[in-house]
Amino acid sequence: MYLEKINGPEDVKKLTDDEMIKLAAEMRNALLKRASIHGGHFGPNFGMIETTIALHYVFDSPKDKIVYDVSHQTYPHKMLTGRKDAYLYEDKYDDVSGYSNPHESEHDFFTIGHTSTSISLASGLAKARNLKGEDGNVIAVIGDGSLSGGEALEGLDYAAELDGNFIIVVNDNDMSIAENHGGMYKNLKKLRETDGKAECNLFKAMGLDYVYVKEGNNVRVLIDAFKKVKDSKKPVVVHISTLKGKGYKPAEEHKEEWHYNGPFDIETGKPLGEMEGEDYSGVTADYLLKKMKQDKSVVAITSATPTVLGFTKDKREEAGKQFMDVGIAEETAAAIASGIAVNGGKPVWGVYSTFVQRAYDQISQDICINNSPATIVTFAGSVYGMNDVTHLGLYDIPMLSNIPNLVYLAPTTKEEYLAMLDWSIEQTEHPVAIKLPGGEMVSDGKQITKDFSVLNKYEMTQQGKKVAFIGLGTFYSLAVGAAAELEKKTGVKPTVINPYYITGTDEQMLEELKKEHDVIVTIEDGILDGGFGEKIARFYGDSAIKVLNFGLKKEFPDRYDVDEMLKKNHLTKELILTDIMNNL
Amino acid sequence: MYLEKINGPEDVKKLTDDEMIKLAAEMRNALLKRASIHGGHFGPNFGMIETTIALHYVFDSPKDKIVYDVSHQTYPHKMLTGRKDAYLYEDKYDDVSGYSNPHESEHDFFTIGHTSTSISLASGLAKARNLKGEDGNVIAVIGDGSLSGGEALEGLDYAAELDGNFIIVVNDNDMSIAENHGGMYKNLKKLRETDGKAECNLFKAMGLDYVYVKEGNNVRVLIDAFKKVKDSKKPVVVHISTLKGKGYKPAEEHKEEWHYNGPFDIETGKPLGEMEGEDYSGVTADYLLKKMKQDKSVVAITSATPTVLGFTKDKREEAGKQFMDVGIAEETAAAIASGIAVNGGKPVWGVYSTFVQRAYDQISQDICINNSPATIVTFAGSVYGMNDVTHLGLYDIPMLSNIPNLVYLAPTTKEEYLAMLDWSIEQTEHPVAIKLPGGEMVSDGKQITKDFSVLNKYEMTQQGKKVAFIGLGTFYSLAVGAAAELEKKTGVKPTVINPYYITGTDEQMLEELKKEHDVIVTIEDGILDGGFGEKIARFYGDSAIKVLNFGLKKEFPDRYDVDEMLKKNHLTKELILTDIMNNL
Repeated sequence: MYLEKINGPEDVKKLTDDEMIKLAAEMRNALLKRASIHGGHFGPNFGMIETTIALHYVFDSPKDKIVYDVSHQTYPHKMLTGRKDAYLYEDKYDDVSGYSNPHESEHDFFTIGHTSTSISLASGLAKARNLKGEDGNVIAVIGDGSLSGGEALEGLDYAAELDGNFIIVVNDNDMSIAENHGGMYKNLKKLRETDGKAECNLFKAMGLDYVYVKEGNNVRVLIDAFKKVKDSKKPVVVHISTLKGKGYKPAEEHKEEWHYNGPFDIETGKPLGEMEGEDYSGVTADYLLKKMKQDKSVVAITSATPTVLGFTKDKREEAGKQFMDVGIAEETAAAIASGIAVNGGKPVWGVYSTFVQRAYDQISQDICINNSPATIVTFAGSVYGMNDVTHLGLYDIPMLSNIPNLVYLAPTTKEEYLAMLDWSIEQTEHPVAIKLPGGEMVSDGKQITKDFSVLNKYEMTQQGKKVAFIGLGTFYSLAVGAAAELEKKTGVKPTVINPYYITGTDEQMLEELKKEHDVIVTIEDGILDGGFGEKIARFYGDSAIKVLNFGLKKEFPDRYDVDEMLKKNHLTKELILTDIMNNL
Repeated sequence: MYLEKINGPEDVKKLTDDEMIKLAAEMRNALLKRASIHGGHFGPNFGMIETTIALHYVFDSPKDKIVYDVSHQTYPHKMLTGRKDAYLYEDKYDDVSGYSNPHESEHDFFTIGHTSTSISLASGLAKARNLKGEDGNVIAVIGDGSLSGGEALEGLDYAAELDGNFIIVVNDNDMSIAENHGGMYKNLKKLRETDGKAECNLFKAMGLDYVYVKEGNNVRVLIDAFKKVKDSKKPVVVHISTLKGKGYKPAEEHKEEWHYNGPFDIETGKPLGEMEGEDYSGVTADYLLKKMKQDKSVVAITSATPTVLGFTKDKREEAGKQFMDVGIAEETAAAIASGIAVNGGKPVWGVYSTFVQRAYDQISQDICINNSPATIVTFAGSVYGMNDVTHLGLYDIPMLSNIPNLVYLAPTTKEEYLAMLDWSIEQTEHPVAIKLPGGEMVSDGKQITKDFSVLNKYEMTQQGKKVAFIGLGTFYSLAVGAAAELEKKTGVKPTVINPYYITGTDEQMLEELKKEHDVIVTIEDGILDGGFGEKIARFYGDSAIKVLNFGLKKEFPDRYDVDEMLKKNHLTKELILTDIMNNL
């Protein structure tokens, strides 16, 4: 086995062409086995094996620096840079993260997980090299799907201004997570069809030199191409045509489904653990599809993650023009939502919490200053969400809730969510965002009669005294549980409140609580800094009432264990109770 | 006079070619006079007079919808859409804002002040039109300088997917605020030189149809061009070559200086009121230029506003390769800063508070997750900063200070600022941002010996009891003043603290304050929600200490009066004292 003997790029350089082809096959096998057991990003890695071998054959990492966009294609790179064991041996699968990671290897320069960043980040590496009067190649690798993101296009434009060597490898597999969207993809297609010879060329129009490699899964061809640009003295794009999922039939044929996968059966390609029951994604698609049929002006918007809204391919077709995928382009998603709302349409942009922050300025300026009645739904903004450091959903409360004019709502159940969504779509006064709760979806069948247009009216779901629990979103149920426990312990029934509104305080209710309460407890699913609880603490600042804020510490944890994280932050019934008892 | 009779676009349509030429001259005169007395955006408006006349001659606003990017070229539009008086009569100059504004006119669809948004916003208008089955033209106007921004490029890419009419007018005056930066500008140049005939064409590469108009200041030529694209059934770019500052020699010759101007003498072009003394911009450039000479790895970065860092043209030349203008591309500025820092360089990105929010995700992901020791300096993040609703500097504390790993510092004097800047540039542990104070620069000549690497250590500048004032940045001096007043009133000397650190609490000091203090007062220059004071309120939540937070209300005020704003938010010595006395 060749792979077993690869301890670093120097070992790749020793191989013959034939051996590299065998190495590629071994890498594919290892990836397939690992993916079938462990899950992970699939398609992008399978297509990039030959390119990665060729890169490490031609260039001298880490002196030559390779930066991989979004990291979905870094597994082969990790295999060739001293981390093969994590792909060969089941007990070592968790030794590596799913993203490029400088803590793992000197061959990784950044922790990267969001798309469209590699060109700009690598430009910085090149600039520093120039300032220090050093040499060496700097290579940014980016997928065609990521190219539509603002930061990538800015970087592509700026790259032409760099002095000295700078190589941009465009891995063109003709796919984003789902199909690509945007006019540039016609140009990439034309370039593929003309063997790179079409006169009209996006990369040349950005002032860059250009090389096309048709056989993007042929190691020898790639090596020759990279040798030609190695040590080139000006920025150049190497446009490579690859096959997403190459080497595994189901993945080649169903590229969207196999962008990322959980454990599956290799023979059939069938997933091993099927998700059971409904979730917020499915519920959202069902609701919206029904709504769209009643109202032609309702439109769902995604920025390249259609299934987070529940819009699988069949549902996208069902929605037709009422479903928009703007590609990886969150800024444009926000702006388009505003434009639609201003012109009388009813837009709903569904976006992961971790990605909503890619459009802070657009949410503030394009939507909120204009008071456009657009709806944003944030998914996986929870301690129960993704736990890779680059994909955390712990920051959307401080990020969104302090933007003026925005009404940020926190439902605790499916029923509340759908009532809020319906209200938001139909109203024309406010920009609205809805933070979906984390953990398993709660559905209690309760009919929601609340009028959400009366802003910042909390609901007291249990009237008691001494202690009041304000449980936001995900942690409303924790508040209910802690309250019951406290009553058992003290014999006094505490008050429980579902606040609904993250963006404002119900001053009247908070004022009334002063009469019969000594301690106010807030619990929220996100970091405490800049969050919901601090607003309550400020409100009671000039009073004798004590306020205890529960939430997460401001930090960037990586691959944390949820239970440990909850304990560390006192987000359990028991620990909350202990803290309360210390204050009674 | 023709202009006096223009009450709306319908009056433009009645004019002959000759009359339109005369109208253009009148508009230029009115703009010149107003600019000389009132100040405002100059160059972009002067170049766009003929285009605006032609747009309103050909299209039927507001049914046809024109969206102006960044609004720097909306003055002629306002003159032709019922707001001429604000340009003709000195006593009415303030009747209009400097930006497009739906509150002023049905011909304005959005309040716009940040760049690069028009294509995406207008795409939303077009999409809603399609959903509702309506017709009418939608026109996005954008300058060449704004094209480099991520949102604009995303929009340009997505536009090709729109069905039906969509017209993008690219106003190419071959300038950003300063000179353009980026490879695409070579392509625009080539297009200008070939009368639009060059095969390699950025807009076509984005999948769009394309028309070039060489004589962008010739009304008749423009009318003919617009007539050709009117009611076209697919997205098309109309690329117009205009002259920035056209019609006023000093502005034509010194385009950067005349992008925006204060009052000036029309004969000589000389400003009427000269800024006296030094300011934070000049201090920054002087410091950095000196530093650059000692250290080749120090590099100043701007995203198209070089003079905010004090880098006027001569200083940019002096800095050479150690000054980078990435163009309007804040995301890339942040990422490049990270890349430079990771590769051993010392980057300082200077940016207006209102624009730093255009790179939230990049600051969080590219810089902070990677703990890149990059330095960001935020300018005009203050109630004393710009007061147009689109350019407020009131939100950077909640925006930046809740991002993990970032050290956000608030100097109160020139000396503290330079000490922080020097520390930040030389250290390699943390991403650092520095929030420049608002109002007049304070310089007390004090030597700063503080070691900023000991994070979150506040400084007690006056030890007292009963009441402690924590005055952040700008408002440290207000805290000192209020403390002196309180001592006069009560005879008891209060404590005064300069916290320096926005991003953390000095728990030890705050704990000690409990012993001899009843009330803690925080004062900050920004909205209270998600801000500094709330963190102090949270800290004392479980204690008997009272906390009073002073700062601004979460809202989007427009063209406010500073004194009124301060009073409204109790940000005066007297009102703070009254609030304290009510709590003693």
